[in-house]
Amino acid sequence: MAKPGAPSRERILVGAADMISRRGLNATSIRELAKHARAPLGSTYHFFPEGKQQLATEAVRYAGEAVSRILRKELDAGPVAGLRAFLALWRGIVVDSDFRAGCPVLAVSVEEPPSDEIPSALVAAAEVFEDWELLLTEALRRHGADPDRAAGLGALVVASVEGAVAMCRAKRSMQPLDRVTQQLEALILDALGRPA
Amino acid sequence: MAKPGAPSRERILVGAADMISRRGLNATSIRELAKHARAPLGSTYHFFPEGKQQLATEAVRYAGEAVSRILRKELDAGPVAGLRAFLALWRGIVVDSDFRAGCPVLAVSVEEPPSDEIPSALVAAAEVFEDWELLLTEALRRHGADPDRAAGLGALVVASVEGAVAMCRAKRSMQPLDRVTQQLEALILDALGRPA
Repeated sequence: MAKPGAPSRERILVGAADMISRRGLNATSIRELAKHARAPLGSTYHFFPEGKQQLATEAVRYAGEAVSRILRKELDAGPVAGLRAFLALWRGIVVDSDFRAGCPVLAVSVEEPPSDEIPSALVAAAEVFEDWELLLTEALRRHGADPDRAAGLGALVVASVEGAVAMCRAKRSMQPLDRVTQQLEALILDALGRPA
Repeated sequence: MAKPGAPSRERILVGAADMISRRGLNATSIRELAKHARAPLGSTYHFFPEGKQQLATEAVRYAGEAVSRILRKELDAGPVAGLRAFLALWRGIVVDSDFRAGCPVLAVSVEEPPSDEIPSALVAAAEVFEDWELLLTEALRRHGADPDRAAGLGALVVASVEGAVAMCRAKRSMQPLDRVTQQLEALILDALGRPA
């Protein structure tokens, strides 16, 4: 059992995911990831003995699962509710960090693998994107959208929200996410056969 | 005039933009940017005496303008032709690099500024996104789209293509961009009042 006040595995994962979303993975050492999570390097290696790539992989999975959990819950009330929760979550991250943080899954996706081997963090990122797309796609299908269009919209929602978060950070403005939100809501209502 | 074989300013910019799109800016030194462009460090400092941030800023602007030039030309034939050219360009970068390269504008956008000052490369990225959005928006308006919807679609196209490029790199598959392409084409035809 962890001593009172000792950093938990979860706190290290949350801190690492936040740091990766701010700085990227290549530019960040395991020492900086630990420091950002207010964890001693020793505890960090205790939980993640294989080092930075293991910590990054589990941080990506952890962040991915946290988003999926919210998506799954809110999609129960329908695709529009799920979309709104997904957008609200990213909006919160960008606004609360004053445009400094974003998505750790995208961050590891846009860094070239150092060798021919595919790093496990990149594999985890691919799985997270796939999971989010599938959750959205299945909810759209359950609520009556055409199956092909549902798959297209699932990909479009994830891609456009990821891109808009990056654009908001560059512009230091929420306008890109606002515009994308409006378009996606109208599209989802249309795919479900409801008036926008 | 440059000596025969001496690296041109343009070659350094092209090389730096490619390297930034692969590795990010924080993780890359000016020495690595120069090496990737096959330019001596001396020539690199000759053209960019203020160092890495200046080179990165001009590389982002250069890449942005290269894309804008293609967009402007192809949008003359209409929004669908412009969209196709925009998508083909990103597809080429991802496929030709075996999923290792992407967008240098997005790369600098997802890196937290090192201090409270906004780095010039980030300002350049915001301007490039704005420029691409405006070119698409204006073409949609010229071809009869509702003005508000045109602005929304301009942002959606840029955001979703940026996000899809990152998803393709993670998944090592063109499926995200394929799906987004299909959705965006249908949307643009619909906004122009033509059957999909």
